[in-house]
Amino acid sequence: MRAAVMRAGTFTVEDVEEPEPGPGQVLVASLANGICGSDLHMVEWMRQQAAASDSPAPAFILGHEFCVEVLDYGPGTEHRLPPGTRACSIPFVSAPGLPEPLVVGMNPRYPGALGERMVLDADRLLALPPEVPITHAALTEPLAVGVRAVAAAGRQQEGGPYVIVGCGPIGIAVMLALRAEGKGPIIAADLSAPRRQLAEELGADVVVDPTVDSPYERIGTLGFTELPLSPFLARGANVSGAVIFECVGAPGLLQSILMGAPRHSQIIVVGMCMGEDKLMPVLGSTKELTLEFINTYKPEEFDTSFRRIAEGQVDVEPLITSTVGLDATQWAFDRLAGAEEMKIVITPG
Amino acid sequence: MRAAVMRAGTFTVEDVEEPEPGPGQVLVASLANGICGSDLHMVEWMRQQAAASDSPAPAFILGHEFCVEVLDYGPGTEHRLPPGTRACSIPFVSAPGLPEPLVVGMNPRYPGALGERMVLDADRLLALPPEVPITHAALTEPLAVGVRAVAAAGRQQEGGPYVIVGCGPIGIAVMLALRAEGKGPIIAADLSAPRRQLAEELGADVVVDPTVDSPYERIGTLGFTELPLSPFLARGANVSGAVIFECVGAPGLLQSILMGAPRHSQIIVVGMCMGEDKLMPVLGSTKELTLEFINTYKPEEFDTSFRRIAEGQVDVEPLITSTVGLDATQWAFDRLAGAEEMKIVITPG
Repeated sequence: MRAAVMRAGTFTVEDVEEPEPGPGQVLVASLANGICGSDLHMVEWMRQQAAASDSPAPAFILGHEFCVEVLDYGPGTEHRLPPGTRACSIPFVSAPGLPEPLVVGMNPRYPGALGERMVLDADRLLALPPEVPITHAALTEPLAVGVRAVAAAGRQQEGGPYVIVGCGPIGIAVMLALRAEGKGPIIAADLSAPRRQLAEELGADVVVDPTVDSPYERIGTLGFTELPLSPFLARGANVSGAVIFECVGAPGLLQSILMGAPRHSQIIVVGMCMGEDKLMPVLGSTKELTLEFINTYKPEEFDTSFRRIAEGQVDVEPLITSTVGLDATQWAFDRLAGAEEMKIVITPG
Repeated sequence: MRAAVMRAGTFTVEDVEEPEPGPGQVLVASLANGICGSDLHMVEWMRQQAAASDSPAPAFILGHEFCVEVLDYGPGTEHRLPPGTRACSIPFVSAPGLPEPLVVGMNPRYPGALGERMVLDADRLLALPPEVPITHAALTEPLAVGVRAVAAAGRQQEGGPYVIVGCGPIGIAVMLALRAEGKGPIIAADLSAPRRQLAEELGADVVVDPTVDSPYERIGTLGFTELPLSPFLARGANVSGAVIFECVGAPGLLQSILMGAPRHSQIIVVGMCMGEDKLMPVLGSTKELTLEFINTYKPEEFDTSFRRIAEGQVDVEPLITSTVGLDATQWAFDRLAGAEEMKIVITPG
């Protein structure tokens, strides 16, 4: 089959071995796949690894945000969905002999959706209604991260305010999840004017350019008052701070949030910051902040994301800035280094 | 009255103005006061401030871990406890005209318990049974921090394991709270052999010298298995990690915990790290860790701490390594720079 193979940070489209479904697995055709920020991290990491090593670079077929079509099942596996059914799935596959499932595309053993075909766990497939575009369905996975982030916030917070730091695909996914659940008000910050505009169109109550204005100072304009230093002692006070979603993953962001956050805020760290970062823990202590790092999602949160897209509760069309074929994979990764694109979907089918 | 006055990081015992109780306030005599790590931070901070400034250094009367005796009430204030009653209280006082209570001793306006007398909110006093030593009662406040830390952990975690990083007064307070609530197993780590020995005597299941052994690797020896990377997908798995209490507050500690912590652990940051710290956020992301910074406690957690000491449920005697008069305040602060002492109690009365 044809696949965009990444070695040492560079993509070439090649003919590779066909994947074979094992027991409990399903063989699917990849119809559409979105490129994720973690794919960009992976490409950069592999480029650095290759530069520092003499060994041959391992080959990866990336792609874990996908819409697929059922082709065939592995031996002894129930044919739950008929061949031809279009479907989504969490991008994990149970690997025989391993104690835990693997993320497809993130290891050389299980190719992801930037190849024509792949294998998945058969019982995790969710059948897609025929009227839903495959490019929209491919956004189920990144939007599930937003569902998870909002669920993590819900443990401690009712009534907002919510601050979204960074309006890339993950920040927008968080905003769509908040909006789908009727939660607000939402203050959204991004350096990029087009991204701020998109955030406003999709439902942010306030958008902020952080080089000009502080999202935290805008909390007051929405009618919220900062909690006292000892909220437990201010009799009758509401003891919730803000919920702040870090959706950038760059050094310095956590410290800027620790500095700006109102007391007793909960910070949901959705962005993934590689490398070393500096911060002042005493800010967390004196304000009694919580940092909750999230990464994956529960299967039921993925289901929620899928249902919202399948039933048209959220409109993901404005997020998709380009749809291209497999041959344009290298172009797509190069383009995503800038902020012009939001989500590029590749259609290997 | 006599008081140990701190200016620019140095203590002198002086005659100072008598405090006057206002409406709702009570005048009390300070019987015993423990020295807190935050007092040491304050002294160091004021030393640095004075070195960098030409203005006269402000005068502080520290002391917020105390046992007192009721003397008199402010105008129009209910005489709830008769004069002569010994009592404890959270170290906050409602300041007229300010939106929130102030910590006594941490501002020049309301002296703390390193003076002979002070004012407190009258309705926050808890009467002490006569048989309880005043030095024990003075430990109500630091032990309340342990109660709070364990309550914060309880939100996410049942059944342990618990790791205590640092067995100074705060680490021991956390351990006593865990033990009082029947929670374990507890792995306690400290660089100091006497502190490890104390932790073992007071109920740690495993004690670790972190220069020799990793507290996180010892979790396995207690029969716990690390969770898979995607615990939500490991069908039927228990999705709790460890609870780790950071009770040191020194640079590098958070990074060492991020590196060592099992996946999905909750890190309760009780230690207060002044200055800049370095860490790798991606460790938090890939392991889905939570950092919960705590500082103060709820009044009901203070009550719990008080009741445990008053009813003899916890024995705080082993924590008190010295009891000295007001004149020895400078000596006490100097001694606490090392690790020989655990808790020094000063008796101004």
